[in-house]
Amino acid sequence: MRMCAMALASSKSKWAAMTNAEIIKAVEEKQLAFYALEQALAPDYERAIEIRREVVKAKWCPSAADTHPLETVPFKNYEWDRVVGQCCENIVGYVPIPLGVAGPLLIDGKKIGLPMATTEGALIASTNRGANAINSSGGCTTAVLKEGMTRAPVVEVDSLEEAAALVKFCEENLSILQEAFESTTRFGKLKSIKCAVAGRKVFLRFVAFTGDAMGMNMITKGCDKALEVLKQHVPSMRVLALSGNYCTDKKPSAINWIEGRGKTVVAEALIKADVVEKTLKCSVDSIVSLNKDKNLVGSAMAGSVGGFNAHAANVVAAVYIATGQDPAQVVESATCITSMDKVGSDLLISVTMPSIEVGAVGGGTGLPAQRALLEVMGCAGANKEEPGANSRQLARVVAGAVLCGELSLMSGLAAGHLLSAHMKLNRKPPQ
Amino acid sequence: MRMCAMALASSKSKWAAMTNAEIIKAVEEKQLAFYALEQALAPDYERAIEIRREVVKAKWCPSAADTHPLETVPFKNYEWDRVVGQCCENIVGYVPIPLGVAGPLLIDGKKIGLPMATTEGALIASTNRGANAINSSGGCTTAVLKEGMTRAPVVEVDSLEEAAALVKFCEENLSILQEAFESTTRFGKLKSIKCAVAGRKVFLRFVAFTGDAMGMNMITKGCDKALEVLKQHVPSMRVLALSGNYCTDKKPSAINWIEGRGKTVVAEALIKADVVEKTLKCSVDSIVSLNKDKNLVGSAMAGSVGGFNAHAANVVAAVYIATGQDPAQVVESATCITSMDKVGSDLLISVTMPSIEVGAVGGGTGLPAQRALLEVMGCAGANKEEPGANSRQLARVVAGAVLCGELSLMSGLAAGHLLSAHMKLNRKPPQ
Amino acid sequence: MRMCAMALASSKSKWAAMTNAEIIKAVEEKQLAFYALEQALAPDYERAIEIRREVVKAKWCPSAADTHPLETVPFKNYEWDRVVGQCCENIVGYVPIPLGVAGPLLIDGKKIGLPMATTEGALIASTNRGANAINSSGGCTTAVLKEGMTRAPVVEVDSLEEAAALVKFCEENLSILQEAFESTTRFGKLKSIKCAVAGRKVFLRFVAFTGDAMGMNMITKGCDKALEVLKQHVPSMRVLALSGNYCTDKKPSAINWIEGRGKTVVAEALIKADVVEKTLKCSVDSIVSLNKDKNLVGSAMAGSVGGFNAHAANVVAAVYIATGQDPAQVVESATCITSMDKVGSDLLISVTMPSIEVGAVGGGTGLPAQRALLEVMGCAGANKEEPGANSRQLARVVAGAVLCGELSLMSGLAAGHLLSAHMKLNRKPPQ
Amino acid sequence: MRMCAMALASSKSKWAAMTNAEIIKAVEEKQLAFYALEQALAPDYERAIEIRREVVKAKWCPSAADTHPLETVPFKNYEWDRVVGQCCENIVGYVPIPLGVAGPLLIDGKKIGLPMATTEGALIASTNRGANAINSSGGCTTAVLKEGMTRAPVVEVDSLEEAAALVKFCEENLSILQEAFESTTRFGKLKSIKCAVAGRKVFLRFVAFTGDAMGMNMITKGCDKALEVLKQHVPSMRVLALSGNYCTDKKPSAINWIEGRGKTVVAEALIKADVVEKTLKCSVDSIVSLNKDKNLVGSAMAGSVGGFNAHAANVVAAVYIATGQDPAQVVESATCITSMDKVGSDLLISVTMPSIEVGAVGGGTGLPAQRALLEVMGCAGANKEEPGANSRQLARVVAGAVLCGELSLMSGLAAGHLLSAHMKLNRKPPQ
Repeated sequence: MRMCAMALASSKSKWAAMTNAEIIKAVEEKQLAFYALEQALAPDYERAIEIRREVVKAKWCPSAADTHPLETVPFKNYEWDRVVGQCCENIVGYVPIPLGVAGPLLIDGKKIGLPMATTEGALIASTNRGANAINSSGGCTTAVLKEGMTRAPVVEVDSLEEAAALVKFCEENLSILQEAFESTTRFGKLKSIKCAVAGRKVFLRFVAFTGDAMGMNMITKGCDKALEVLKQHVPSMRVLALSGNYCTDKKPSAINWIEGRGKTVVAEALIKADVVEKTLKCSVDSIVSLNKDKNLVGSAMAGSVGGFNAHAANVVAAVYIATGQDPAQVVESATCITSMDKVGSDLLISVTMPSIEVGAVGGGTGLPAQRALLEVMGCAGANKEEPGANSRQLARVVAGAVLCGELSLMSGLAAGHLLSAHMKLNRKPPQ
Repeated sequence: MRMCAMALASSKSKWAAMTNAEIIKAVEEKQLAFYALEQALAPDYERAIEIRREVVKAKWCPSAADTHPLETVPFKNYEWDRVVGQCCENIVGYVPIPLGVAGPLLIDGKKIGLPMATTEGALIASTNRGANAINSSGGCTTAVLKEGMTRAPVVEVDSLEEAAALVKFCEENLSILQEAFESTTRFGKLKSIKCAVAGRKVFLRFVAFTGDAMGMNMITKGCDKALEVLKQHVPSMRVLALSGNYCTDKKPSAINWIEGRGKTVVAEALIKADVVEKTLKCSVDSIVSLNKDKNLVGSAMAGSVGGFNAHAANVVAAVYIATGQDPAQVVESATCITSMDKVGSDLLISVTMPSIEVGAVGGGTGLPAQRALLEVMGCAGANKEEPGANSRQLARVVAGAVLCGELSLMSGLAAGHLLSAHMKLNRKPPQ
Repeated sequence: MRMCAMALASSKSKWAAMTNAEIIKAVEEKQLAFYALEQALAPDYERAIEIRREVVKAKWCPSAADTHPLETVPFKNYEWDRVVGQCCENIVGYVPIPLGVAGPLLIDGKKIGLPMATTEGALIASTNRGANAINSSGGCTTAVLKEGMTRAPVVEVDSLEEAAALVKFCEENLSILQEAFESTTRFGKLKSIKCAVAGRKVFLRFVAFTGDAMGMNMITKGCDKALEVLKQHVPSMRVLALSGNYCTDKKPSAINWIEGRGKTVVAEALIKADVVEKTLKCSVDSIVSLNKDKNLVGSAMAGSVGGFNAHAANVVAAVYIATGQDPAQVVESATCITSMDKVGSDLLISVTMPSIEVGAVGGGTGLPAQRALLEVMGCAGANKEEPGANSRQLARVVAGAVLCGELSLMSGLAAGHLLSAHMKLNRKPPQ
Repeated sequence: MRMCAMALASSKSKWAAMTNAEIIKAVEEKQLAFYALEQALAPDYERAIEIRREVVKAKWCPSAADTHPLETVPFKNYEWDRVVGQCCENIVGYVPIPLGVAGPLLIDGKKIGLPMATTEGALIASTNRGANAINSSGGCTTAVLKEGMTRAPVVEVDSLEEAAALVKFCEENLSILQEAFESTTRFGKLKSIKCAVAGRKVFLRFVAFTGDAMGMNMITKGCDKALEVLKQHVPSMRVLALSGNYCTDKKPSAINWIEGRGKTVVAEALIKADVVEKTLKCSVDSIVSLNKDKNLVGSAMAGSVGGFNAHAANVVAAVYIATGQDPAQVVESATCITSMDKVGSDLLISVTMPSIEVGAVGGGTGLPAQRALLEVMGCAGANKEEPGANSRQLARVVAGAVLCGELSLMSGLAAGHLLSAHMKLNRKPPQ
């Protein structure tokens, strides 16, 4: 698929000199691959994209309208060099996602604004309301209880005995595998390996510290190397796949809920009774009771593993899109149990989130707007003094934002005024 | 929070006449609410946003740099009137998400391009590769097996006997509740109610056809009305919350996996052996075997409910962001079991996705780029001849796109060349 | 394996006339099958068993001891004709399980003793304590919300289109399948079929009323017939297996938790505050709070589906063994959510159990002691006036017994005196 | 409830001297507690039980029949001194469970008979058939991959910060807690503690080696002591309950599936193609294919965690009841994934069972028949040379027996002859 890259490189000047129409013809006649336009016209990526749009408009979905719908999708004045070859292929433009801010939230003693990219009406207003209530009560605190990205290759051996021996080797010789793993990375540290055996297949869940990166790339490289060394010690071992779904990435799974993935974070706030009543318009008893009926019993009845919350995913998705995180990882990052108890006459609320997968470098965090929003939050890029501190801080803020969202939505439901509020603004209803 | 809207309206001219500096001062002195800038300056939303950005820059995160990071976040030349009061609050701009296209995919006899907004390198290239392999084998087919958005209020009665009677009433008098429900909506049709009892709490999972809308709004309004009527028949009933998490929205849950939510779609393709070998560079046996070891056994070992796939969430998230769907609903929309079998010497692959929650109208589908991409796919807006046909078509395409993604990633893993390919492009590794 | 039954029958007199030593020799020389002793010596089953014990003692585990351990296992004076060919093969005796009684419990206005066969010290005492507390407060009430045994064959067709058509056929022609199903049974009534599709495999979960039988036999026969008729309408359909695990029998599964299997029963009691304090030695607040922390939050953290209780399985297993139910079905029968709320100053406790699989006829219920205990409870055999009433009653009692067990153990934990109590009697600790 | 034990002791001679009628009157007039009969008449427990039966017959369920049903329940000639005060209360007799044997199975090079107490027709015959097929192919091998009983108290502290500190203390000072734990037990060894935080509640899952005992008693005592010491270091900590359901005992849970509880055992066998065809009457391809469709896909569709098998619970329950194990622990002990692959032309089958909870001492293992059957299997009582070896051996045999059951039932289903076979004997159908 990626063949002829060199040929392309040497002939770049040729393509640049052609007219758009000529290049389109070349694409249609398969002299130039559809995907290779950026390579052919580098560094004029905007032109490459413009040409691709013409191809798409003409061939994929001819339109009788005066203005082809694709015209509505913007593509100009963007830093495409940060995208090409890194974040996206077959580029035809970009999709703007509306961005609002909630807060700032007083979290661990600092005020931090919460950027949220969303199209769900009322979500930011609601999160903001939660932040106000929390701020009025002295803010929230967070704790990062655990940290480690995971990747679980699946391997095969020739007997059950060998499978048991392989597990034993990993337990007793972690340092050998650590050395191999860490030879591939500056920041990554292999922390442990959790093994599961199914017959002669062994799933090896590597857990690694990955600095300020979300870390999937880093850990995959490290695993690959560690498996190479492992094979020297267990020659019969065959790697079936670098990922055996025991990781688990972007799929619901109990293992992430129980073991954690990325950062395991808890955030809590003690909301004063009068704030609950005046700002949140409900009583401490009513919200505590509803939290049990909905977030515990309701989710239990629904057969949920990790979904003991009202709408954590809304907040996580909005902050993730704003800050260049991987939105597919919302699947596990948004697992959360929301606890509420009456303490004295006040409301103690907390969210426990075992699998917040975030990075301050890499992936979409390098795009201009996303990077800027991380800067606004004070956690962009690699933390030089304390590697990993920026991604941990981002994870704390995600948990804090979820805390705001849970407090606000649950109080709205407890007060029973939510539907009317939503409907008035033609917004989406409660989750 | 939204009070004084009328007061604002009448004084709009006042704010419009002020300088930005004056308005900023008014916001700082709380004469004008931070969130109310758009209302005060309507219809000049761009100016409202510009002013909010100044407030944020000055107060939330003062920066010593020449250029404040927020400057990097775009906000001009956007159709803010489609956003204000509908999709976002406290707006400060928008976040551009790179957009590429895969395919077009031959699906149910038609060629349809797959727009994907993503920052994950290699994702679109991979999906495209899958589409090519499918197209070379005659395309894929899909089936929509079920359709129905859900919402489950939780109510309380005064005894177990009453709880049982309530359940019985709902079973035997569905038509009464249908009439109430349908009085609130032009398209919505209440199909059934599934009840679960926990002590004296009853969870009523309403299932409704919602036309071309994803339907959360529609169904919530309908539920509210149906509960009002239900209360006339069961006076002791108290509504604890309009959503009791038995819905289940945006949380992992077995109930969605088993009952479905939104559209239940299956897509399949028969890939010829030589396409598997030449295009996908692996053998039918190896990919079938890996599908069992990874997507079935690996996910089983991980305690997954609904995550029997390689990376459905990647594809779903990318198509959802491109087309204005709710990215938080990726949580359940991406549940998927990927099946592979050898049929003759060819590869039969299918994806079964019980909970694809999509709409062709409402939410983010009204934003310009998102709407345009739905148009490109041929399923924008309400289908006049056959209400619901557009959202069903969108669901089919989502499943088809996931089929491409599964085929491509699994073949890459089976061929063992994935890490190198990813790493070469500094892209993220396999899921 | 069962061949030569006729040959055996005709030569019965031959075996009966031989000495034990001769028969043992014949077994050792494989002239008589080890399993066929009962057939050869019928109706003298005790002699057959005695001979088998000799074979086992001599060949399987020769013992130097004066008394072979197997001598300790009783086998005499038992009604083996109720066992042979029905309940057990290769019989060598029986295992006595100690039997105690708790209660009687005041349930739905009647006092019913709770027979429990168990070796877990303190279990019956604890259940009895719960029954006392419930009786002191006016007893408990129950409701059977749903009823239906299930069986889910898995079938295969030749395309996705056919799979969709098959599902549609089952939905639209239930009566055809009902007729087929019901032709095989006097009591069974096919209520519904729930279909799940995975590629070209279709899982058809038949739900049937099975009278006073637990019903697995009845429903399997009915399914077999219904599939035969279904195949006439969908000729390409192939039955892969009569059970496709979507039933789900004797395995943990969300489908049983959500859809129910057997009887779905709720039991509740309102325990007066002074009973909680004086009999149960804890406070209403403390037990309500612990129920949330342990049975809801603790089980949620553990990733449980259906295990939101303290020790329902203990009680279910003990009653099942006493009454001839299938102890392997404890797996799903014991799924239970225990709810506790403060109502006024009293304690409202309930247990919701969606999958109580019991029968008043069939299986082990025909054995002498087990049958007798069902008689003592007033629900033995088929109810002539109202088929199914006896098995429903048994299910109610099971739920009531679980209610006793939950109340007692939870109050003990809340009072903090459990360990000492258990240890004093050298009994097992709390679950 | 257990008060007045001393008073009873001193007056024993008094009761012994009375007639049965007098004692019955005393019980009815509450001069003697119903539960205290054994204490009053010790050591003549049989008489105590006889009297209790009279009370039950007269008061709980008067019968017009000539023979009261309870007469059918045996109680004579049993070693009640092994039961009273240990295994059962309010004793009225015992329930005989038919006992058969399967095998002997060639497991890890030794032939071991499989005692099974069951009322499910065909179960033993089927297990036996599996054993024959395995023996014909050279037997099966097993591996114990992990060992540790668990108990998880739930505690509470006063802030999130303290919760984090508590977790850290447990991680960094395991040896302090080990010392405390191990001061209470001769065999028990605390191996690790896994902490989960939900707000200010902390669940501490203790994992301990418990020698040849199943170990719930041992670990609970150890936890109690360790918590006492932990509280000295974290004075704000309050123990909410000695079991917080994060253990998890006798409830379905992902944590046991993923972390294991008791013994984690895998058993495998390579069945020769001709054995599959001749003994098992199916083909290797058909059984491998069915294992995927039923045990993997079917269970996945059903939302199962840990139920990827055909009927492990049947075999586990039968062996547990025969050998005095806790039948309520079948819930988690029977979780199992059954793998089948074609290796060459043969069938590789394995069962992976992470949570086999068995003991060779304690609980019901001390009863005469149960103890004898453990002796027959060669693993009764505490292993003096290698503590724990007997319970591990029992766990291996359980896994081996399950392997037989899986092989046999799956081949029967694959061959399609199961229903007829079952029906002929009026037995229960496949699981």
